[in-house]
Amino acid sequence: MSKKVVLAYSGGLDTSAIVPWLIENKGCEVHAFVADVGQGEDELAGVEAKAIASGAVSCKIADLTDEFVDDYVMPTIQTGAIYEGKYLLGTAMARPIIAKAQAEHALAIGADAVSHGCTGKGNDQVRFESAFAAIAPNLEVMAPWREWDLTSREALLAYLAERQIPCTASATKIYSRDRNIWHISHEGGAIEDPWNAAPEDAWQMTSSIENAPNAPEDVSITFEQGMPVALEGRAMSATEILEALNLVGGEHGVGRVDLVENRLVGMKSRGLYETPGGTILVAAYHSLEELVHDRMSLHYKEHVGLTFAELVYNGQWFTPLREALTAFASNMAQKVTGTVVVKLHKAHAIASQRQSPNSLYDEQFATFGKDEVYNQTDAAGFIKLWSLPQRISALHTMGAVTS
Amino acid sequence: MSKKVVLAYSGGLDTSAIVPWLIENKGCEVHAFVADVGQGEDELAGVEAKAIASGAVSCKIADLTDEFVDDYVMPTIQTGAIYEGKYLLGTAMARPIIAKAQAEHALAIGADAVSHGCTGKGNDQVRFESAFAAIAPNLEVMAPWREWDLTSREALLAYLAERQIPCTASATKIYSRDRNIWHISHEGGAIEDPWNAAPEDAWQMTSSIENAPNAPEDVSITFEQGMPVALEGRAMSATEILEALNLVGGEHGVGRVDLVENRLVGMKSRGLYETPGGTILVAAYHSLEELVHDRMSLHYKEHVGLTFAELVYNGQWFTPLREALTAFASNMAQKVTGTVVVKLHKAHAIASQRQSPNSLYDEQFATFGKDEVYNQTDAAGFIKLWSLPQRISALHTMGAVTS
Amino acid sequence: MSKKVVLAYSGGLDTSAIVPWLIENKGCEVHAFVADVGQGEDELAGVEAKAIASGAVSCKIADLTDEFVDDYVMPTIQTGAIYEGKYLLGTAMARPIIAKAQAEHALAIGADAVSHGCTGKGNDQVRFESAFAAIAPNLEVMAPWREWDLTSREALLAYLAERQIPCTASATKIYSRDRNIWHISHEGGAIEDPWNAAPEDAWQMTSSIENAPNAPEDVSITFEQGMPVALEGRAMSATEILEALNLVGGEHGVGRVDLVENRLVGMKSRGLYETPGGTILVAAYHSLEELVHDRMSLHYKEHVGLTFAELVYNGQWFTPLREALTAFASNMAQKVTGTVVVKLHKAHAIASQRQSPNSLYDEQFATFGKDEVYNQTDAAGFIKLWSLPQRISALHTMGAVTS
Amino acid sequence: MSKKVVLAYSGGLDTSAIVPWLIENKGCEVHAFVADVGQGEDELAGVEAKAIASGAVSCKIADLTDEFVDDYVMPTIQTGAIYEGKYLLGTAMARPIIAKAQAEHALAIGADAVSHGCTGKGNDQVRFESAFAAIAPNLEVMAPWREWDLTSREALLAYLAERQIPCTASATKIYSRDRNIWHISHEGGAIEDPWNAAPEDAWQMTSSIENAPNAPEDVSITFEQGMPVALEGRAMSATEILEALNLVGGEHGVGRVDLVENRLVGMKSRGLYETPGGTILVAAYHSLEELVHDRMSLHYKEHVGLTFAELVYNGQWFTPLREALTAFASNMAQKVTGTVVVKLHKAHAIASQRQSPNSLYDEQFATFGKDEVYNQTDAAGFIKLWSLPQRISALHTMGAVTS
Repeated sequence: MSKKVVLAYSGGLDTSAIVPWLIENKGCEVHAFVADVGQGEDELAGVEAKAIASGAVSCKIADLTDEFVDDYVMPTIQTGAIYEGKYLLGTAMARPIIAKAQAEHALAIGADAVSHGCTGKGNDQVRFESAFAAIAPNLEVMAPWREWDLTSREALLAYLAERQIPCTASATKIYSRDRNIWHISHEGGAIEDPWNAAPEDAWQMTSSIENAPNAPEDVSITFEQGMPVALEGRAMSATEILEALNLVGGEHGVGRVDLVENRLVGMKSRGLYETPGGTILVAAYHSLEELVHDRMSLHYKEHVGLTFAELVYNGQWFTPLREALTAFASNMAQKVTGTVVVKLHKAHAIASQRQSPNSLYDEQFATFGKDEVYNQTDAAGFIKLWSLPQRISALHTMGAVTS
Repeated sequence: MSKKVVLAYSGGLDTSAIVPWLIENKGCEVHAFVADVGQGEDELAGVEAKAIASGAVSCKIADLTDEFVDDYVMPTIQTGAIYEGKYLLGTAMARPIIAKAQAEHALAIGADAVSHGCTGKGNDQVRFESAFAAIAPNLEVMAPWREWDLTSREALLAYLAERQIPCTASATKIYSRDRNIWHISHEGGAIEDPWNAAPEDAWQMTSSIENAPNAPEDVSITFEQGMPVALEGRAMSATEILEALNLVGGEHGVGRVDLVENRLVGMKSRGLYETPGGTILVAAYHSLEELVHDRMSLHYKEHVGLTFAELVYNGQWFTPLREALTAFASNMAQKVTGTVVVKLHKAHAIASQRQSPNSLYDEQFATFGKDEVYNQTDAAGFIKLWSLPQRISALHTMGAVTS
Repeated sequence: MSKKVVLAYSGGLDTSAIVPWLIENKGCEVHAFVADVGQGEDELAGVEAKAIASGAVSCKIADLTDEFVDDYVMPTIQTGAIYEGKYLLGTAMARPIIAKAQAEHALAIGADAVSHGCTGKGNDQVRFESAFAAIAPNLEVMAPWREWDLTSREALLAYLAERQIPCTASATKIYSRDRNIWHISHEGGAIEDPWNAAPEDAWQMTSSIENAPNAPEDVSITFEQGMPVALEGRAMSATEILEALNLVGGEHGVGRVDLVENRLVGMKSRGLYETPGGTILVAAYHSLEELVHDRMSLHYKEHVGLTFAELVYNGQWFTPLREALTAFASNMAQKVTGTVVVKLHKAHAIASQRQSPNSLYDEQFATFGKDEVYNQTDAAGFIKLWSLPQRISALHTMGAVTS
Repeated sequence: MSKKVVLAYSGGLDTSAIVPWLIENKGCEVHAFVADVGQGEDELAGVEAKAIASGAVSCKIADLTDEFVDDYVMPTIQTGAIYEGKYLLGTAMARPIIAKAQAEHALAIGADAVSHGCTGKGNDQVRFESAFAAIAPNLEVMAPWREWDLTSREALLAYLAERQIPCTASATKIYSRDRNIWHISHEGGAIEDPWNAAPEDAWQMTSSIENAPNAPEDVSITFEQGMPVALEGRAMSATEILEALNLVGGEHGVGRVDLVENRLVGMKSRGLYETPGGTILVAAYHSLEELVHDRMSLHYKEHVGLTFAELVYNGQWFTPLREALTAFASNMAQKVTGTVVVKLHKAHAIASQRQSPNSLYDEQFATFGKDEVYNQTDAAGFIKLWSLPQRISALHTMGAVTS
């Protein structure tokens, strides 16, 4: 009897070939699962027909965009997570929500297995399969890329052609890409040599610095308890705000990243990322945090962000540590209320104005005027005790202190 | 008998007034000490004559620029230290070297006390006095700003005028500044309201985005074991490289920062910083590190950088922890050898090309070709064990595991 | 008009003298506030009469013991906080709850000030006054120990005798102590020389190893979601369990600590601590955590515990960071359900048996039998990727990898 | 042509069977390699003859004990590494030195492969193979336990009997053990049920509490720059000191640990450990650190110790991060000079007296006397600034601060 498998299907070249491969090599009944995480109509149009044409028995499309933004993206932003100083985790955040929905669909239809089209050298296989382990630990996992010998676009196209499965992919696609509402990533081709400057033809969502408008443009974003709730004062959902920021940020060339990064699987790779709206949101969020968090909590949160970025990057979303760190960050996010103006100009997103009802900044304290709260003579005592260990140590070295 | 005091003297309004104040109020014999840390001829020209005119008995000028760059700036860069995500620590790194040289001068001439012109609300008083505690723990510290009632520019000017001490300072200076070879900082005036965008008239070292050239410009920086050693392939000292980068970076508008920061003394303040050359150096350094450090050490170093930034910001340079962390970072810096091309364009400093003899990046590993080092089927086993805790937990929750 | 001050009053020598001192030197109307945090009848008996006899206008006794155990002690235990590897924070956890209740009482009766009897060299002044700053930021703080010249027991006794205030304190008390339901601390006298072994006459709650029973004794503690709920299977409150454990633990000599510690105010001091019941609880709690937390979350929590210990020790209970870390730890504590048997024997509290419905430990996984969950051949792939960075680096050094 | 393999050989049942298995199944010429890391004559006696009798072509015994203590154990102690709060890493520290010497031997004799007798469920396979990857990345690794079906002692004994290979192992050995100069570990049998108390028959190096002497015994250990150099004032090597401490510590029952731990490979296991001398050394070392390290460096080092323990446990000795953290810890260890008296009594090792020429502790500072270094009135200013963020926040919440 054939195994029932649910495949994370995109309609691209790889997953189009995986459908017949699973049928032929694993004796499977293949059910396609398409997650809409805001990758856009280009990718989603006709995807169901494609899946069926490839041999899938069914194709389910799940709209996960709002859940992705509200429950994966924003909680990650709230921790301050940025991977290796640059990467805003667009693909890494999307994998767990896709894999979770896919695994739940598999359980719902009584499938025996789940499958994905990730290569055996990347992070995404880990993210998918770690989510499967957490959500549906008894389902078999099929990862054709780690088994088959179809290791080139030509081979894949030939494989489809032999089976008369229509495919619009060309043999000469240069870059490997992943897109959702938060970002698009690019790998491969000329990007692979770190001595090559990022090739201009790779970028898709953003203008170059040259082509970005000469005139700056301000956008005003309002947050309530850590969530974006309004743009230019108009109430909107987080998804709507992100979509609008993607457009205006892309126009101004905001959010390009060029990074040689460490993959979890032990090797380095180079990637280009475009996160126009996300970069604006992060700049605004961080700027608001400057006003509302005290020193200790802000500094501790910087460490939490580093760890959270590793968890997300490494496919550990469905873990107790991720949940506990979310509880930490969510607690702090309650204070992040206020409005930030971000100036977009020549690929910059500069938080230029910020205000918050929870602001701990008060001009009076920081300036010269007298006030009740801060007495400058207190500083003398503070410094004496602050530097006491150095003083004791120095005195000791001089022989002035007995031990 | 009068106390002998060594004053950290800049020639500005504050320290010009402190000289007579110490004489009149503390009965001191005042010796001026001027540290040249690359603040430029504007500030240093005629400073000795000014000191004497103010009443100082002597004025010593010490050129600390190379030592500042080699022993304070670069070791800090090597740790990755950036304060609160933005501030490159220009003033914070300079205070310990100034205070150390000042305290050593005081010990050398048999002084009884040291003095500085920092206000009682800022970080610099802590940095100066913590260094004094470590270097000359028995010397008295005099901090006139915490004692006197000359709390406005007008009062200070009047105080000098009464004593016929010449001073070129105007009554209407808007911003409070600190400059050295690494950066210039700006506080006060319209900057104090975080809802004001950074006023254009504050900036001094950098062009605006508007005024920066339309055409990009590449600079090539070569590092050896963590130190910059060549620019465009020509061997130069770190100081010379930094000076050259300041010019070209400033022209392209690189290195402006606008930050509401947490001062050590418990309040928030807003500061603007310009670090043109430093921003380029940091971008280049970080980019080279992407090639040469493995994941674990790079990620750990991110945490070290956060702590090191706190130490420097908080005046804790002369502490055992700072020394031990320097040993850590110095060990890692031995690998940072190679060349980076940084593209300067419209206030961006983008590391666009990098190469290193110590690079751990190899295109072969990251791409599709077969190789001996990485076997894709290994990934299946890796993921199984990597996600085993989640699987066990999920099975347990399902009742499939006994406990 | 006299200022109304609320004094944290203990009935001991110091606070007995502070009452008249505040009246005479600050012109105060003194209201005593006594916090019952389980220090025992010895200290509390007749305390109200003593306060009035010293000149206090009123004396309020607040029973805070259950709140202390439930809302301060257990949340701290849940983080794993231990200061400098040894100290279970007994005094540090008590100060914020005392100071909070005191400050709230002061606000309730319309007082102008709050006062305490802590010396100017210790941590407790910081803990009290930091809590005052958070709860009643506008109240004046009076800290007589930092002002007066009554710097010896003799002077204090003479001061009271002159005023005919009765006091049972002797002139020769050797150790400075602080006691509550969680612990007792000892400082001073022969303890101050770290080359002296801890003097046997200091200890109060615990038997010596010599005097502890030769026969071991088992106690069984049951936890529900991080809270102790039963002893030997009988449901009891956390306070009741702690009281019972104090008795049996003390009899067996459990919980002595001898530590040269770093005070927040910059100096070292040596302290002895007895925490009999607490030491048992912590051993049991930790042992249960071994079963229920996965590796990542357990290891991360170790870091959190270090930071939480600093926060508590440093008087930073009422801070956003303490709250956010509590959210983290509280999330993890939900899993800590189960029963632990602790063997008490000759000053040891050894968790010898543990079981939990949330245990992730399964003998089947760890042993040799075949199972579905873990396939030994997966380990080969895991290790290959785990050690890949070292392999690449080694190959590179050998010249086998191009860069 | 047969492959030349170097096997980490112990003379026990497993590796005795691996010799013929490698010959028969992999067509190997087997060279035995025995590392002497202080496991004792019981294990080493006649090991060469055993190896040859099993079919090995050669058997090399390398005495690594001093190198193990000096370059692996003490640098680890200097970091403060303890795994999951209890485990002193005895096996984990030994694996890299054994694997390194083995791999170097393999390279020296031109071998094609290395092999070990670790199971596929444990940490040791990772430690061995990670070291192989770093030292001899091109050698093949053979791990019979992950391949063969000899999964019981009976099967192994039968396998040897069939081949007439002599073996003194019994079929009923209960516990799985690993011993070296630092410790002995025990797993398996009745230990596997965490609800069983540790079985008394498992322990080998230490007396029970019952059987330990009633009278305490003091040992005095002297350290120079982080290394133990004398016992009872007599100069001895670190190895000699450790051996002596093992005897006396074992007699007093010191150093038993019972832990349910998280293995790297994703599962939990329960282990018993005995580290008598090591536990004494660690107690002494830690106690000396209390005197010589300032607060900041000591607290930071606690975090480093946690990470270092993970690195060692996880087989990551030969990594850049381990080296950089060693540079950190080694810097701090320079201060650890002095003498500690440790009281051994009924399984306790209590540091009871400590002195150091580098001590930062001074009774004068901590007590009531007046001194020049610490002025109690400074504390008022310190506390004001220390708690300023809480005060500002509280005032803000009350509406007293504008934002």
